[in-house]
Amino acid sequence: MIKMQRNIYIENRPLEEAIRIFTDALEACGYFNLAGERIPVRETLGRVTSQPVYSHRSSPHYVASAMDGIAVKAEATANANELHPINLDPEEYLEVDTGDWVPSRFDAVVMIEEVNFIDGKAQLIKPAVPWQHVRSVGEDLVARDLLITSLVPIGPYEIASFITAALEYVDVIKAPRVAIIPTGTELREQASNDMEPGEIVESNSSMLAGLCRQWGAIPFRHDIVIDDVDLLRQAVAEVKDQADMIVICSGSSAGREDYSSSIVAEFGEVLVHGIATRPGKPAILGIIDNKPVIGVPGYPISAQLIFNLFARPIIYRKQGLEPPETESLICSMSRKLASSGGVDEFVYVNIAPIKDGYTAHPLNRGAGISTSLVKADGVLVIPRGNEGLQTGEKCRVELRRPRKVIDRTIISIGSHDICLDFLADILQKQDLRLVSANVGSMGGIMALRRGDTHFAGIHLLDQETGEYNISYLNRYLGDRNWLLVNLVKRQQGLIVSSGNPLEITTLFDLQQPAIRYINRQAGAGTRVLFDFLLSNSHIKPETINGYTREEYTHLAVAAAVKNNAADAALGIFAAAQALDLDFIPLAEERYDLAILPDVMGEKNIDILLSAISSEAFQERAKAFGGYSLELSGQIISENTI
Amino acid sequence: MIKMQRNIYIENRPLEEAIRIFTDALEACGYFNLAGERIPVRETLGRVTSQPVYSHRSSPHYVASAMDGIAVKAEATANANELHPINLDPEEYLEVDTGDWVPSRFDAVVMIEEVNFIDGKAQLIKPAVPWQHVRSVGEDLVARDLLITSLVPIGPYEIASFITAALEYVDVIKAPRVAIIPTGTELREQASNDMEPGEIVESNSSMLAGLCRQWGAIPFRHDIVIDDVDLLRQAVAEVKDQADMIVICSGSSAGREDYSSSIVAEFGEVLVHGIATRPGKPAILGIIDNKPVIGVPGYPISAQLIFNLFARPIIYRKQGLEPPETESLICSMSRKLASSGGVDEFVYVNIAPIKDGYTAHPLNRGAGISTSLVKADGVLVIPRGNEGLQTGEKCRVELRRPRKVIDRTIISIGSHDICLDFLADILQKQDLRLVSANVGSMGGIMALRRGDTHFAGIHLLDQETGEYNISYLNRYLGDRNWLLVNLVKRQQGLIVSSGNPLEITTLFDLQQPAIRYINRQAGAGTRVLFDFLLSNSHIKPETINGYTREEYTHLAVAAAVKNNAADAALGIFAAAQALDLDFIPLAEERYDLAILPDVMGEKNIDILLSAISSEAFQERAKAFGGYSLELSGQIISENTI
Repeated sequence: MIKMQRNIYIENRPLEEAIRIFTDALEACGYFNLAGERIPVRETLGRVTSQPVYSHRSSPHYVASAMDGIAVKAEATANANELHPINLDPEEYLEVDTGDWVPSRFDAVVMIEEVNFIDGKAQLIKPAVPWQHVRSVGEDLVARDLLITSLVPIGPYEIASFITAALEYVDVIKAPRVAIIPTGTELREQASNDMEPGEIVESNSSMLAGLCRQWGAIPFRHDIVIDDVDLLRQAVAEVKDQADMIVICSGSSAGREDYSSSIVAEFGEVLVHGIATRPGKPAILGIIDNKPVIGVPGYPISAQLIFNLFARPIIYRKQGLEPPETESLICSMSRKLASSGGVDEFVYVNIAPIKDGYTAHPLNRGAGISTSLVKADGVLVIPRGNEGLQTGEKCRVELRRPRKVIDRTIISIGSHDICLDFLADILQKQDLRLVSANVGSMGGIMALRRGDTHFAGIHLLDQETGEYNISYLNRYLGDRNWLLVNLVKRQQGLIVSSGNPLEITTLFDLQQPAIRYINRQAGAGTRVLFDFLLSNSHIKPETINGYTREEYTHLAVAAAVKNNAADAALGIFAAAQALDLDFIPLAEERYDLAILPDVMGEKNIDILLSAISSEAFQERAKAFGGYSLELSGQIISENTI
Repeated sequence: MIKMQRNIYIENRPLEEAIRIFTDALEACGYFNLAGERIPVRETLGRVTSQPVYSHRSSPHYVASAMDGIAVKAEATANANELHPINLDPEEYLEVDTGDWVPSRFDAVVMIEEVNFIDGKAQLIKPAVPWQHVRSVGEDLVARDLLITSLVPIGPYEIASFITAALEYVDVIKAPRVAIIPTGTELREQASNDMEPGEIVESNSSMLAGLCRQWGAIPFRHDIVIDDVDLLRQAVAEVKDQADMIVICSGSSAGREDYSSSIVAEFGEVLVHGIATRPGKPAILGIIDNKPVIGVPGYPISAQLIFNLFARPIIYRKQGLEPPETESLICSMSRKLASSGGVDEFVYVNIAPIKDGYTAHPLNRGAGISTSLVKADGVLVIPRGNEGLQTGEKCRVELRRPRKVIDRTIISIGSHDICLDFLADILQKQDLRLVSANVGSMGGIMALRRGDTHFAGIHLLDQETGEYNISYLNRYLGDRNWLLVNLVKRQQGLIVSSGNPLEITTLFDLQQPAIRYINRQAGAGTRVLFDFLLSNSHIKPETINGYTREEYTHLAVAAAVKNNAADAALGIFAAAQALDLDFIPLAEERYDLAILPDVMGEKNIDILLSAISSEAFQERAKAFGGYSLELSGQIISENTI
């Protein structure tokens, strides 16, 4: 990798100021003047008119029958009545279907139900009123009729009327073309399992392209540009004439941003470099050839934030549209959320309907945790100058998912097991979304105490009795209703590399300094079990290399072993199995769900229990291995106050 | 055209019953079992997962730096403090950027800001904590992590995480393929000005295809099938294996439906033929090869209603989705709306925010008026057994446009002039939508009296004083605030065929029986003027052939002349001009806007007045011809109570 001059200092522009500077500059150069293009009428779905649309013809273009019946001259029927029907000769009438031409010798249509055909004559028993059941020329539309004004979205009905109006082409607002340039020597087009350390798969351009499409723009992507100023210059020169907006994915290292900004300055002007938001700070805003340029940071969570904040309003406005309003919800915070005062901090959250309100559960704020974006139900902002939110504090959360989905959510805060994922998939088919937050078993107990969760997965060993979970619930939740249901029994053991090259067989082997252990966080059931097993074997924690190194899930510790970042971890068989690792069983434990019936409600409990008992769930758990299902779905204990 | 056996009798199934029969039959044959397909990850935007999606790899797959800085062994920094900095030799540290690999001989990263480089050594003044600023393997995601369950919509963030997770393909729910077969010998692919009487341009398939796309289905269209049972049989046979739904656009004549239904019966089963709705009655519901078949009527307004009622829920459900909820509004009816009791009647309406509520203005209910679909802001249902709605009665209207657009609407009920269309286009650019309902000048006065309109275009001649509009306002609106503003002065005269072949020069010529006059409706300003001119010339209305034949707009009477459905009409120069007709001027009149300030509000009045005074408006009116603009935008009179 080419080493560049490091420029540690970047600006720290307040968000509104950055938006104002960017918008003012674009307005000043006439960027928002709407551009039109003429496209075939059948391709206009979802586009917006740039000119008023007038009909090119009249429809119907002939006098038409509005009914199935006969065309007549009304005058000739004037004297018809029940006693004295009149009989029209074949030349005095014409059989017509709906839509047929009514030639000018006729001026009315009699419905077929009111006609008696006798020997080729049409018998009527009442007179026709002139122009009855006749559609006049232009009844639907007339040549030069205004169909729709400019700035109107075109839907299926508009298209049908354009076709009827004989339009072949329609003037629509040009969809902005957005050039996306991924930069970084470390980037790979496609992830694979033989990537070198330091290599990263390039996903940002697909994410930003998807956002462009959702906003009505047409994205196009440049090939990955390695860290080379000349190549970046060439890339910008290549795209700038075809694009209405240029996005440089600057990567995450400080050096690269600097040369992105120097290239922007070379072709145009850097307006802002550094915005007081978290994530997203090292963004670049500029103008090249009267077009906006955005340099987005490398982490997906930062990249999308900057793109949502700056590109979205511009892309909509460039189409003469306002960005659709996003729904928001008032939620109460499930836990304290600190923020340093200098920046507007955007925090992604899960939302669960708890009792009569909604609770927001902050997701991992690490900028590298792109999965937070997939998990997020919404985003909240802690404005700069504000030090954060207290537990229970109300805040407004902008939704990223339809309210309907959120209203059908149950949340499980506690220990994680892979079986919860199977359960989530089965529940989803019952239109119930299961969100899990992995905070360990004790974290689950605390969430139950606060009434913040519908249920909690727990596997807490009582070191005195050897029994699981019940004593903890009695201790911490004796004063409320709960229901303890077994999900699975599962094997816990040491997860080690495939083939067990270090020949680890017992806990005592972990005392070798060369063996790197990786632990679960305090409060995790597995940590409790580990401490119990160590104490049974009279092993002191400090003799274990890595005892203080903590991960939050079974799969995370297994992954560390898989990738040779650690040599051993206590975890479940399923995690070892998932990653093709060896497993040395040490214990079987009961993994239960502690449910709050008052929070979850009877109906959802029924859905949950039948999902656990379903064949689909049982089969998937069995197939995965390491689980015993003999207690699965059984009520282990219950508290009713 | 081939004449077919007419089968006048069709069923009259209540709507819910038809829905139930159709749904039950489709459920019984397993139609709603979700089908999946595997598609490339970058093509999944907007699709829905059919299987849970698991990660194929861990990310990061190596221990990574979370900062720009140096990688160190924490142990080696343990004793650093301000008084006794420690100096690391080059082999004791490694410069790293964010995202770089931290090799296993290191276990912490120190931020660049905290490092002093002196002679190639890195000086630190505080110890590093083990694993600080280090991203562990799988911090973001771990191989076998559940990314999302089945039945989840895929957006840009999901795509990014799939790419990071090394997925090349994703299992998504198969988008239903909908075959659309237009039928009818009278249908033409493309409208033109030399179409024969009876020919109709085929627009329904494009409309239904657009709806399919909006609902996530993939439409494909068969060529137009003329009225021939064998050809229709062949068409159905061709599409049925590729389609998940078959739509036969049956046209509007009774005969054709019959053979559509006979073909459905031949390949499968007709479940319902005839549904108790207006429009839409002659629809067909059936099943062929366990797939739904819908026969839709020919009028676009009927076709889309049937398609919305029956295809929409099925297409969503086939994708594992619920149809998005449509917003609705409580509106009060601007006028009485009668309905015959036997059917559920769907009425399309414009909606205007009037004072604190919303008023619904029914659009033309004629089944052939496809422009009502383009104009409609919403649809209301008069349930069968209900005889209709009274003026002022509240009703729920399902919206077809965003609420935001409706909230920015002003409505003009009254006489129409082409200049109102120019005005609408200019106002749209000020984010104010102008909706016009053409009910003539007296209709406008009545709407003003009811307070149902923001303003009314009027041109009412006081036959005693020769003055326009003011005396009418004083008589009917003396007790409320109004403002009379001139829009234009315009020429009224006789509109006749190009070249004036019948040599019409004065009103007296209209008394020739061979000359077919076409009149405006009672209450139209032009009708008032016509009656005034006739009476001045002592011409009796009954001596004019066509005096009782009425149309509602200038363009409509001009179109009748243009298409030889009439020989003469009184109308404005602009209408003659628009259709290249001859014009014999008879009078100049003042076309004013009578505004209700209490309904419209000061802000919208300002926008309207500056739109009238705008260069854009003046230029367009001038360019069109037949207008004088010397009073345009002037306040003619005002009433303040």
